[in-house]
Parts: sequence; C-alpha cells; structure tokens
Amino acid sequence: MSLEKIISQIKPRDQTAMQAAQARQDTLTKPQGSLGRLEALSIQLAGITGRAIPTINEKVIITMAGDHGVVAEGVSAYPQEVTPQMVLNFLTGGAAINVLARHVGARVVIVDMGVASDVPVREGLVVKKIARGTANLAKGPAMTREQGTESILSGVEIVEAEIARGADIIGTGDMGIGNTTPSAAIACALMKQHPKEIAGRGTGVDDEGLKRKIDAIERALNVNQPNANDGLDVLAKVGGFEIGGLAGVMLGAAAHGKPVMVDGFISTAAAMIAVTIAPQCRDYLIAAHRSKERGHGLMLDWLGLNPLLDFDLRLGEGTGAALGISMAEAACKILAEMATFGEAGVSEKDIKDIASS
Amino acid sequence: MSLEKIISQIKPRDQTAMQAAQARQDTLTKPQGSLGRLEALSIQLAGITGRAIPTINEKVIITMAGDHGVVAEGVSAYPQEVTPQMVLNFLTGGAAINVLARHVGARVVIVDMGVASDVPVREGLVVKKIARGTANLAKGPAMTREQGTESILSGVEIVEAEIARGADIIGTGDMGIGNTTPSAAIACALMKQHPKEIAGRGTGVDDEGLKRKIDAIERALNVNQPNANDGLDVLAKVGGFEIGGLAGVMLGAAAHGKPVMVDGFISTAAAMIAVTIAPQCRDYLIAAHRSKERGHGLMLDWLGLNPLLDFDLRLGEGTGAALGISMAEAACKILAEMATFGEAGVSEKDIKDIASS
Repeated sequence: MSLEKIISQIKPRDQTAMQAAQARQDTLTKPQGSLGRLEALSIQLAGITGRAIPTINEKVIITMAGDHGVVAEGVSAYPQEVTPQMVLNFLTGGAAINVLARHVGARVVIVDMGVASDVPVREGLVVKKIARGTANLAKGPAMTREQGTESILSGVEIVEAEIARGADIIGTGDMGIGNTTPSAAIACALMKQHPKEIAGRGTGVDDEGLKRKIDAIERALNVNQPNANDGLDVLAKVGGFEIGGLAGVMLGAAAHGKPVMVDGFISTAAAMIAVTIAPQCRDYLIAAHRSKERGHGLMLDWLGLNPLLDFDLRLGEGTGAALGISMAEAACKILAEMATFGEAGVSEKDIKDIASS
Repeated sequence: MSLEKIISQIKPRDQTAMQAAQARQDTLTKPQGSLGRLEALSIQLAGITGRAIPTINEKVIITMAGDHGVVAEGVSAYPQEVTPQMVLNFLTGGAAINVLARHVGARVVIVDMGVASDVPVREGLVVKKIARGTANLAKGPAMTREQGTESILSGVEIVEAEIARGADIIGTGDMGIGNTTPSAAIACALMKQHPKEIAGRGTGVDDEGLKRKIDAIERALNVNQPNANDGLDVLAKVGGFEIGGLAGVMLGAAAHGKPVMVDGFISTAAAMIAVTIAPQCRDYLIAAHRSKERGHGLMLDWLGLNPLLDFDLRLGEGTGAALGISMAEAACKILAEMATFGEAGVSEKDIKDIASS
C-alpha cells in the first residue's frame, strides 16, 4: 500500500446523495431548517457516505499514544511515565474516554504508536511502535521522513481494519505527555503563526513552562525549517508518531467514504497534516469541539471546520469526539426516523400555502 | 396543593454535595478541570440532587401543547390545526422529539394544556386542558389569573407524578402554533425590552408576518400592562397554558431536588416566569441550547444561564433538551465511573510535584 494510492481514492462528497438528503429533510414534520446543525450534519454525512439516508451503527474511536523527545525541554506539567500509565488506564476502562465511549455506544481502539517505554500487551491494545518516542524537535527533526510515512500508513492500516469490521464513523483521540508542543509546532509551521499565538498550557503547565514551550517551538521551527507545502515534511520535522497515525486514520477513512469526528488540539494538528497532504480529505472531517487550548480556534478556522461543541475541554483521548459522534448519530436518526408530512397526516399543503402567503 | 407551598420547598443547592463532587473530580485520572463544562455540570447536578455522586437513569421529557388566540393576528407561518396534528405525531412517535428522546433514552410525556380542538385520547397523552386556547393577548389578557395558577399547578402535578415514577432529570418541551409570540411578550415584559429586540421568525414567518408579530406584542404590552414583579400576572396577561405548565414543571422539579433541562425559546420564557415567581428555582435549571430565535440569547443572559449547545435549533418540542440531557448524563458518568489516580496506578504524587514545580 502506498500513500499516493490512498490519496487517489479520496473522492469529493456525493452531491446526489446530499441533494436527496436535503430533499428528504424538507418533507419531515418540522419547519424546514428548524433543526439547524443537525440537518446540515445529516446532509454532510449523506455526502460522505454516498447514501441518501446514512446510518451510524458501529462507532469506533481510535486513540493513539506516543511519546515526545521534546519533554526534555520541560514543556509539560506531567512526567513521561504518565503516557504508559494512562494507556493501561484506557485498557482497563477507567479513563474519561472509556466512560464517554460507553455513554455513546462506541468501541475504543488503543494504539501504541510510539510510547517511550513498554506497555504491557493486553486485549484491546494495537502495537505499531514506530520508535520509542520521537527525538527532541527543538534540536532537530522529531523523526525521519520514512518514519513519518510509516506512522501515516499505520494509521491507514488500522482504520481500514476497523472499517472492515463495520465501523460507520471514526472518532480520533490521542495520549502523549508533551504532545501539545508538536501539535502547536505543526500549526505554526502550516499557518505561519508565532508560537505565542498557538501554544497554550496543555495539561496545565505554569507560566515558566509555557515560556519554555514557546521557546522550544521557536527553536524547532528555526532549526528544522519545515516546508509548509509538504505535510509529510512538517510531520517528520516537528510532529509525533500518534499525530502521523491520526493523519493516516483520517486519510484512510476518507478514502473509504467514512466520516471522521476530529477531537481537540492534537487531532486537529493531525487533520492539518492530512489536509496538507490531501486537501480533499477535509470534506470527511467533522470538528467535534473547540478546545480550551489557545490556538485551537485558529486551527479550526484554517481548516474551515465549525466545531459542534464548545465545552472548554482540554483533555484529548477522543473525549470530545465521543460526544460529537452522538450528535452525528442523532442527525442521521432524524433523517431516517422522522415521519414525513404525508405519513403523519400533517397537511403539508396548508402549511406551504400559509408559509408563502 | 398551593403554589406558596411548592415555592417554600425549593432549597438552595447542597454545598456539601458540591464540594464532595469537586473533590472527587480532582482525584480522577485527568488534569484538574480538563473536562471543562462536563465537570462543572456534574458539580451543579450534585448540588441540585444533594448527592456527591449523582446518577441519571430515568430521563423524562415533558412536552406541553397549547393554542393561542393571538394567531388571529397572523403571527405564525402555520395554521392552528397543526397543533393537534403534531400532538398526534408525538403520540405515534414520528416527530423530532420522539427520535431524539429515543436516541438519548428518554421517555416523552405529552400534555394537552390547552389545545383549541379535541386531541384524540391515546396512550401517552395527559389531558390538562385549562381551556381551548388562550384569548388574543393583543386585545386583552390571554387568560384569567386563576387559569394562570391552574396551569402552573397542573405542571407541578405532572412533574411530581413523573418524579414519583423515578425521573432523575426533567427536560421541557413545547408545541403550540403561535407560541413564540406570547414567549417574546413575556420576555419583553420582564426584561423591559422592545419587541423588535426579542421577537423572531418562529417557525418561519415572513417580513410582513414578523411586523404583525411585533405589532401584536406591542399592543399586548400596552393593553395589558403586565407587572414585571408578578410572574403570575405576566403569565396570565401575555402568556400561554403550555408556558404556565412548563413553569410549573420547573417549580415542581426544583421543589423535589431534580434538575431541569430547559429547551429553547418557549421553555426559556417559562423559566423566566418560574424564576420571577421563585428566584431560587434558577439553581435547578440547565439551559440546553441557544436557539436561533432572535431574543433567546438575551433571555438566557437575563436568567444567568450559559447554554450547553449552539446548534441553530428553532423547533422546540424539547429537541434541544433531549441532547442536553445526554450531556448531563455524560457528566454524571464521568464523576461516577472514572478511575481515580490511586485506583488506576497513575502516580498522583509525581504529577502534583511536577505540576506545582
């Protein structure tokens, strides 16, 4: 499998399906357009899936973990040991993503994309360790270009396996101490923004830590000179393994006509990589929420995505994506299950006469 | 049962339970505060229910229907016959509220508070017909003060029955052709705003219809002179039976320590009546969403409620409340089901040492 092949498989949204979904929305027993974003979402999902009445039954959240050499710069409030500890927490069902995934009826797939230490293999863990953490991007490339490609193709492979098992929608999630730093660096590189405009406090770094983080990103951009026209170059120089993997998940889902519910700051950085590599991928992305992390709103604007929720989340893991998936499912059910004016015996003709009078 | 008795039963939120919920949130395996509004919501629900770890199992949406004499002024895009037609649609499960309630696992209770025509009695319909529609509020009081009290007490009675059946949370919903007009009139009376700032297009009235609507509200305020310090007076003079009923639902739920998920424009007008009658009721209200209807944001500000969702909904029925209930349930599950640092073997001490360094 090659990246070029995957990219070539991503088609524009199906306009015929979208028109059919819009036409059906307009026959349902409600004033036209009165369900706002739920209606728009159902039409988008029709276009993504190529089905006039899309259904979401199987829901999968892919949460990818990786470590980051840049933690040596003191950019995070937490020690690196927390990455494998939280992966174990995911596998035993005690983390926020487990709770919210259960709430919305989604399955969580945990992937070790490059945790620095060994994670005890347990049921539910997919191991695609590209390396034991990235190199320190403040001093040189985070990974080789080959590792960048490998991380993306691993993401494609994982999402293809889930689609083969029946996934109707894919949520993205991340875990990795320090990973708001590469995410902010990616955004700065692609948007030509200063790190001060993008970098935030992540899991809760203090003022000094935030200064170190901004400084590390500045040095990373200077020393690496990532090429904003080359998503793979940006990923390799200032990214992370879980970020590359999530970009691959998005490209793979798009290639197979499946919607992707994009979580917060890290997932959005991955989306920026995916869209730089294959702009048509954007049509398949739904932004679950606007995170509290500083640059996230600008990043969503750059992608042209309007987030569903604004809950001040700043956890990652796919927690926002889980909530967003429930909204997408609701949108599909509205389109599929509501009665039409004809079926319900609500006189459409009267209504139209009056409405246009 | 008297209104005074109900009001006297509404207690402030339980600070001890809120402190316990906050303390537990801070031991769960996530950076403190990183689940944003979900954390705040769980703490609010602890205070409402008086339980350190509140649970939401039984979810009930009470959707109240009524007709409005003011439709004679040409304020709606739809004819009055649509009110009973939609009530039937609710009872047969084909309306948006049925779909979304099923999605979130809520039961819908449909109440005829004052539909102008007869609604065929079917399973699931509660009949509390105060009268066959209100009088035209542009020409005089919509109802008598006694009918206002009766509509509120009917709402109390209905919500008490649902709480006796085990309801843990109550969503509010409405149906009534023309009912954005009394709702806007209530808001104008209580907020001393001009109808132009509050009245919107409702189900989709055109420019001429909107002018008629604003004019009708102006006349209603002039002819009736509602007393902004007397919620019952405002309700009786420019309100509606379903609006009074919903205010009663809110007062009754608050009196029994149950949270209320307030739907859109009409439910918010009802909340304004409830809070004018009993200010302490506000603590029990959660705003599900900011509707597309013009004055809704101002009304939520007046109430001091920050809506959960911003989905451009303008349907009513309880559709936004259904989505909001799912968020409240998610918030409770986070508090109840997440592992603590100790349980998960994630070293809290290391984290705190680093975080405070």
